Amino acid sequence: MTQPPTFEPPRSIDSPEERARYERGAAVLNAVDGGSAPAVMEALSDIAPALAHHIVAFGFGDIYSRPGLDPQQRQLVTLGILTALGGCEPQLEVHIRTSLNVGLTPTEIVEALTHAAGYCGFPKALNAIFTAKRVFAERGLLPVAD
Amino acid sequence: MTQPPTFEPPRSIDSPEERARYERGAAVLNAVDGGSAPAVMEALSDIAPALAHHIVAFGFGDIYSRPGLDPQQRQLVTLGILTALGGCEPQLEVHIRTSLNVGLTPTEIVEALTHAAGYCGFPKALNAIFTAKRVFAERGLLPVAD
Amino acid sequence: MTQPPTFEPPRSIDSPEERARYERGAAVLNAVDGGSAPAVMEALSDIAPALAHHIVAFGFGDIYSRPGLDPQQRQLVTLGILTALGGCEPQLEVHIRTSLNVGLTPTEIVEALTHAAGYCGFPKALNAIFTAKRVFAERGLLPVAD
Amino acid sequence: MTQPPTFEPPRSIDSPEERARYERGAAVLNAVDGGSAPAVMEALSDIAPALAHHIVAFGFGDIYSRPGLDPQQRQLVTLGILTALGGCEPQLEVHIRTSLNVGLTPTEIVEALTHAAGYCGFPKALNAIFTAKRVFAERGLLPVAD
Amino acid sequence: MTQPPTFEPPRSIDSPEERARYERGAAVLNAVDGGSAPAVMEALSDIAPALAHHIVAFGFGDIYSRPGLDPQQRQLVTLGILTALGGCEPQLEVHIRTSLNVGLTPTEIVEALTHAAGYCGFPKALNAIFTAKRVFAERGLLPVAD
Amino acid sequence: MTQPPTFEPPRSIDSPEERARYERGAAVLNAVDGGSAPAVMEALSDIAPALAHHIVAFGFGDIYSRPGLDPQQRQLVTLGILTALGGCEPQLEVHIRTSLNVGLTPTEIVEALTHAAGYCGFPKALNAIFTAKRVFAERGLLPVAD
Repeated sequence: MTQPPTFEPPRSIDSPEERARYERGAAVLNAVDGGSAPAVMEALSDIAPALAHHIVAFGFGDIYSRPGLDPQQRQLVTLGILTALGGCEPQLEVHIRTSLNVGLTPTEIVEALTHAAGYCGFPKALNAIFTAKRVFAERGLLPVAD
Repeated sequence: MTQPPTFEPPRSIDSPEERARYERGAAVLNAVDGGSAPAVMEALSDIAPALAHHIVAFGFGDIYSRPGLDPQQRQLVTLGILTALGGCEPQLEVHIRTSLNVGLTPTEIVEALTHAAGYCGFPKALNAIFTAKRVFAERGLLPVAD
Repeated sequence: MTQPPTFEPPRSIDSPEERARYERGAAVLNAVDGGSAPAVMEALSDIAPALAHHIVAFGFGDIYSRPGLDPQQRQLVTLGILTALGGCEPQLEVHIRTSLNVGLTPTEIVEALTHAAGYCGFPKALNAIFTAKRVFAERGLLPVAD
Repeated sequence: MTQPPTFEPPRSIDSPEERARYERGAAVLNAVDGGSAPAVMEALSDIAPALAHHIVAFGFGDIYSRPGLDPQQRQLVTLGILTALGGCEPQLEVHIRTSLNVGLTPTEIVEALTHAAGYCGFPKALNAIFTAKRVFAERGLLPVAD
Repeated sequence: MTQPPTFEPPRSIDSPEERARYERGAAVLNAVDGGSAPAVMEALSDIAPALAHHIVAFGFGDIYSRPGLDPQQRQLVTLGILTALGGCEPQLEVHIRTSLNVGLTPTEIVEALTHAAGYCGFPKALNAIFTAKRVFAERGLLPVAD
Repeated sequence: MTQPPTFEPPRSIDSPEERARYERGAAVLNAVDGGSAPAVMEALSDIAPALAHHIVAFGFGDIYSRPGLDPQQRQLVTLGILTALGGCEPQLEVHIRTSLNVGLTPTEIVEALTHAAGYCGFPKALNAIFTAKRVFAERGLLPVAD
């Protein structure tokens, strides 16, 4: 059998360069975070710290802060994706908090999830709406004006 | 075995009330359409005219025209959903044309699909980007400024 | 940037025409409902009443009551879809109750979900079977004859 | 590192017992097949004959012939699954032929796919309808009565 | 309407031949099982014994024991599939136990799920990692070395 | 409405640091690539160069080269994911070439896709097998020994 190739391992996530990348991402995450993200990252620390590192350094540092879309626009795309994927209610909950935090109104969030029904069906839209309802209830944002 | 229940059939899609609903939806569709929708609707006429009717009457008349989100915001949600679903490149192509038509720039569309990579993975993001590339090429919109 | 188009908002869901549409759908839903749907609709009332309206008016009034398939046939299609989508156990639970209510037997429901295994894999079939088991247990329908 | 366990390999698909299992499945497949399946099975012969064997022996011999649902009911479940999965147009094409062959009418097939729109969204329903349209066109079954 | 075809039902799962097939599969399952599978199979006994039979006879007897891949390789494929499908956390939990049992290390499992992030997105990778964390916690395998 | 937060944009992908990250990833990609990747990256250059950059810098530089799994193991996970996602045949084609390149045999690849059938269903397994068949045919690797 052919031997698989080998390569240099990546820089340690504890190297100064990677810590600097992480810090840039963490600044973005803190600016948009609706309060749930730190607990998720902390929960990864004893099992997959590299995954946590790259969510922050790549996802927020490299991508989220790019100038092509503002945070409200990014959250609309994200709400669409998470609703369509299904089974990602924990992440949707985080992103509904983030959506509120960057200035989307409860009405806009509900409208995005209602809009989703035509594109990915009522069942997934319902799962997303009931996820939003839990977040809105906890923040005293119910009822939402139609 | 229990007999399944029976009910009144719905109003004909050719009834005056349904034609009025259709006309309201068609006005919305025409306002946002990037040029591909009429061919899709026409292609349904000999196999599923009711489906075409409801896409227009319900999807555009009842939902798309609701005031909670503007068309650019709706397209961002839709781009997220169609990228995440996968296998919906024909519909994504229609919606990339619609996105341009309602004023999203090529840069914003590319950014939405690049943003999607972190949430639904690089393969689906690539499928969406290459769909956008076909639309942009046909409209003379390449290269897209990064 | 191009301004997004604007349009007339849709008829209010509280207009006489929309209330009549809703009533037609509610009659269908009541005829097929296995007992779970009203609670779902009620749970939407303070967050997404328009979504609840359209599930009833469009989903049941416009589509479910069409004469091309009887309710048992529609439920078989729905069981297939919800099993394949995954992550829609709450909706599958509602639809297993509905399936029983329109006259599908527990054996037919189990057979549909067993059949699904070859088309969408054992894991999703198992999720669906265990959802059915919860409904059957609550109705005293276990064990199911093989 | 723990050594992975080893076990007896399964019976050869060329053993008399497996050939008998295959023959039972092939009889079922032939009875329901709409004409596309043999070409699919043949196309597997030089790459994955075991997969072809098990689709026939397990999928048709063990499951499809079970008495709990008749072939029309099984096809309704299958149409729902394949529409919801997305990206399975080649298999959907086979199963639309099979659906016709076991007695579902074009109207029932179209109705199943129209019904699907509410549960998995318009884009996937459209993909399925256009797949059906190709089969119906080839069989001279267009236009379909609404 | 055309009558659907009818066929011989399959051999009973209680026939000697099927019991022998089951026994071969059960030997494989027992060899790789991380401890959760028997409870899943037992839970099917009063609702879908045929599904349980075929998971064992087909899934483990016919497929898992084939010589083309060893159990560790099969588990890597399975971890990839279950992470990508989403909504299959109960099955993923079973398969993380199985993965440990066939000799994959916690580090290899975490690495497989971290690798998955690029291909199916961070949200599904996170769901899988937190499922692994529950299994590792119950087995005293935390923290996992990065 | 709350103003969305703003942040520093990320480092340019043309900065020395990002070019160094890219070079590390490109070395990994070149070592495992089965010949298709450069064309994909080149095709992104006029529409989404940042996406191409991050696939290489993050996907290959940061993740693929991590020591926890060797390339053959990573490819098994990837084959599972891409088969399960569906609709990603272009990416699956690239990764079947990569799988061959890192030393997985055609038999192992076919076995992985056959194994997938039980976990995500025959239709998606068939799509993956026929994608593999195209790659194997082009490389003169047919028939594959069962």
